[in-house]
Amino acid sequence: MQKIFSVTHNDVNSNARLGVLSLPHGEVQTPAFMPVGTNGTVKGMYHENVEKIGYKLILGNTYHLYLRPGLEVLEQFGGLHSFSHWDHNLLTDSGGFQVFSLSGLRKISEKGVAFQSHIDGSKHIFTPEKVVDIQKIIGSDIAMCLDVCTPPDIDHRAAKEAMHITHNWAQRALNHREQLGEEFRGNLFGIVQGNFFQDLRKESAEFFNTMDFPGIAIGGLSVGETSDQFKEFLSFTADIVTKDKPRYVMGIGSPDYILEAVENGIDMFDCVLATRMARNGAVFTDDGIVTLKKAIHKFDAGPLETGCTCTACTQYSRAYMHHMIKTGEMLGGMLATEHNLTYFYRLMEKVRQAIAENRFSSFKRDYLARFYGK
Amino acid sequence: MQKIFSVTHNDVNSNARLGVLSLPHGEVQTPAFMPVGTNGTVKGMYHENVEKIGYKLILGNTYHLYLRPGLEVLEQFGGLHSFSHWDHNLLTDSGGFQVFSLSGLRKISEKGVAFQSHIDGSKHIFTPEKVVDIQKIIGSDIAMCLDVCTPPDIDHRAAKEAMHITHNWAQRALNHREQLGEEFRGNLFGIVQGNFFQDLRKESAEFFNTMDFPGIAIGGLSVGETSDQFKEFLSFTADIVTKDKPRYVMGIGSPDYILEAVENGIDMFDCVLATRMARNGAVFTDDGIVTLKKAIHKFDAGPLETGCTCTACTQYSRAYMHHMIKTGEMLGGMLATEHNLTYFYRLMEKVRQAIAENRFSSFKRDYLARFYGK
Repeated sequence: MQKIFSVTHNDVNSNARLGVLSLPHGEVQTPAFMPVGTNGTVKGMYHENVEKIGYKLILGNTYHLYLRPGLEVLEQFGGLHSFSHWDHNLLTDSGGFQVFSLSGLRKISEKGVAFQSHIDGSKHIFTPEKVVDIQKIIGSDIAMCLDVCTPPDIDHRAAKEAMHITHNWAQRALNHREQLGEEFRGNLFGIVQGNFFQDLRKESAEFFNTMDFPGIAIGGLSVGETSDQFKEFLSFTADIVTKDKPRYVMGIGSPDYILEAVENGIDMFDCVLATRMARNGAVFTDDGIVTLKKAIHKFDAGPLETGCTCTACTQYSRAYMHHMIKTGEMLGGMLATEHNLTYFYRLMEKVRQAIAENRFSSFKRDYLARFYGK
Repeated sequence: MQKIFSVTHNDVNSNARLGVLSLPHGEVQTPAFMPVGTNGTVKGMYHENVEKIGYKLILGNTYHLYLRPGLEVLEQFGGLHSFSHWDHNLLTDSGGFQVFSLSGLRKISEKGVAFQSHIDGSKHIFTPEKVVDIQKIIGSDIAMCLDVCTPPDIDHRAAKEAMHITHNWAQRALNHREQLGEEFRGNLFGIVQGNFFQDLRKESAEFFNTMDFPGIAIGGLSVGETSDQFKEFLSFTADIVTKDKPRYVMGIGSPDYILEAVENGIDMFDCVLATRMARNGAVFTDDGIVTLKKAIHKFDAGPLETGCTCTACTQYSRAYMHHMIKTGEMLGGMLATEHNLTYFYRLMEKVRQAIAENRFSSFKRDYLARFYGK
C-alpha cells in the first residue's frame, strides 16, 4: 500500500489536524471540502471556475457516470479527467448510496447488488470487483469500495448482516484492486459501517484498521439520523478509526457538521448542499444563510458577503441576485453556486488556519454562534 | 437629432452595407447581430463572456424589466448598465411585442395599451410617453417607440387602424423624448408598421422617413408570416426606408433571415433563437444545425465546430456536449449558448468581410447552400 497522506500538524486542544493528501493529480491540503460533480461537472460551474476558487479535488458519482455517459464512452476518452477537461483530482463514490436511494428493484446478495436504472429501468449488477473496474475506467484518484448503505431505523440483526456483507465486499474489492496493480493509479478507500450500534461500529472500524486501504471513510452518517445521533456516532467511530490514514465522512456539508467532523479529526467531506441550495437561491455567509428570494433583498445594494472574492460579490448586488433568482435566470444559479463554493473554500482556509494556531475548538464555537445566531 | 450612424462602405453588387453606430457606450460595427438579455442577462452567460466574444450591443426587454426588477429598483441602481454590470451598449424594445404576445387582457386605445402582467395579473398601462420614460430609467442606448404589433392574418382596415395608432404614438414618443433633452442619452428609433399590405408599408415608411428619429426599425416581420411574405415585405419596405439611418429588423436570427436582411441593407437584428436553441442542445455550425441529443454524437471526439474559439469547441468533444445535454446539466446550456453566440458573432464577421470585398450576394448564396445543404 502506497502512503498518500501525512499529518502536518495536530491541534493541541482538539482532535483536529492538518494534512496533505498526495494524489495522482497533485496535492490537496486537508481538512478539505470537496464539491460534487455528479455527472462529471459541478452543476452551474465552468470547471475552470471551480479550479480558480482553489479546489484540487472534486467528486463524481460512479452510479451516474456508469449509466451516463457509460463505460464505453469513458473508456474511449481515456477516463473522466480528459472527457470532462478536469486536470486535478477526482474522487468517485462506490455507487452504493445511489443504488440504495435512487434505483428501483434492488436486490442484495453476497455476490453484489442488482438494480434497475432510475433513467430507463435497465437492469444492472454492481459487484465489489466491478465497481473497482468502473472507477478504474473513470480514472478516479480516489475510489471507494462498494458497501451496503442502511437507514437509521433498522434493527441490530439487519445492521450486522449489512456490515458483514460490506466487510466481505471490501476484502474482495481490495483483492481485486491489488490484482490490477499499476494499471490503476487510484487509491481505494474502505468504508466503515455498522449503522447506529456501537458494537457494530467498533467491529467495523477495527476490521478496516487492519486492512491495507490507503484511506478510510466513515459511512452511514448523515442518512436521516438526528443531529445527536450523528455527533455521537461520528465521535465514537472517529475515536477508533486509525489516525494514520486520511479519514473521510461522506455527504456532510453544512457548517455545523463540517466543523464537528473536523473537530473529530476528519480530513475530507463532500456534499451537494452548497450547490443545490445555490440553485434555489440560498447562499452561505459567515452570518448564516441568505435566502435571495426574500423581498428584503429587492433594493439591497450590498454584496452577498463583504470581502468575498467571487463574481457575484465583486460585480453584483444582492438586489441583482434577488432579481436573477426571482426571474429564474440561469445566471442566478451560476453566480450563487460560485459564491457558495467560494464560501466553503474560504471556510476551510479559516479552519486550517485555526488548526495551525491550535485554536480550532474556540474557532468552531465562535463560528457556529455567529453563523446560527446562537 | 444627433447623427449616430455612418455608412462606411456599400457593396457594389447588392444593397448590403457596412456602417458604424456611435452610441453612448461605444461604437458598434454593422451589420450587427444583437444577443437578447430579456431580464438584464443573456441566459446562461456571464456578461464578461458575452463581452469576450466581441458583442458591444445587447438587448433587454422593456416589458420584462418594467415588471421585474421594476422601475424603483432600476432607478435606485442608476439603470440597467450598472445594475447588471454591463458596460457596453443596451437596446431595449418598446414592450409592445410582449404586451401583445405575453400579457393578458390587453386593451388598446389612442391613449396607450392597458394590460395585465403575465406574472401576477397586476394591471398596467403603457403609453408612448411612459415607454420612453421607462427606457430612460433603464438607461437604454437605443430605445424603441411603443407600437401596435399585429399578426399576419388581419384585414386592411384593422392593419390601417393599428398603423395610424403606431404613427400617432411615434409622434408623441418623439415629442416626449425631445422634451427630455440631455436628461436621456438614449437614441429613440421609430418602427415602421403596415402589416402585409404594400400601400400601408409605403405610407408607414414614408411617414417615418420624414421624422426626426436617429434610426428606424422595420416592425411586424417574422411574426408568423410565410418565408415568401417575409422576403417580399422586407424587400419592399427596405427599398423605401431612408438609407441615411441605421435600419433594424426585430426578431430575426436564423442565418437565412439574417443574410436576407443584410442583402436588403439592414444593419441590425436580434433574436432569442441562438440562445433558446442552445438550451435545448441545438448548436449552429457553418454546416447547419447540430442536435446534440442525437445518439450519433455519443462517441464523437470532434469539437462542435472546427476552428471555433468558444469554450465548448476548445475544451470539449461533441460526446461530452451530448452527455451534458442528455443529463440536463446546466453546463450543457451554458456551453452551447456560448458556442451559438460565438457562431453568430463569427458569421457577422464573415458577412462584414464579404461586404467589404463587394461579394456579399455570392457569399450569401454559398453560405446558405452549405448551411441548409441546398
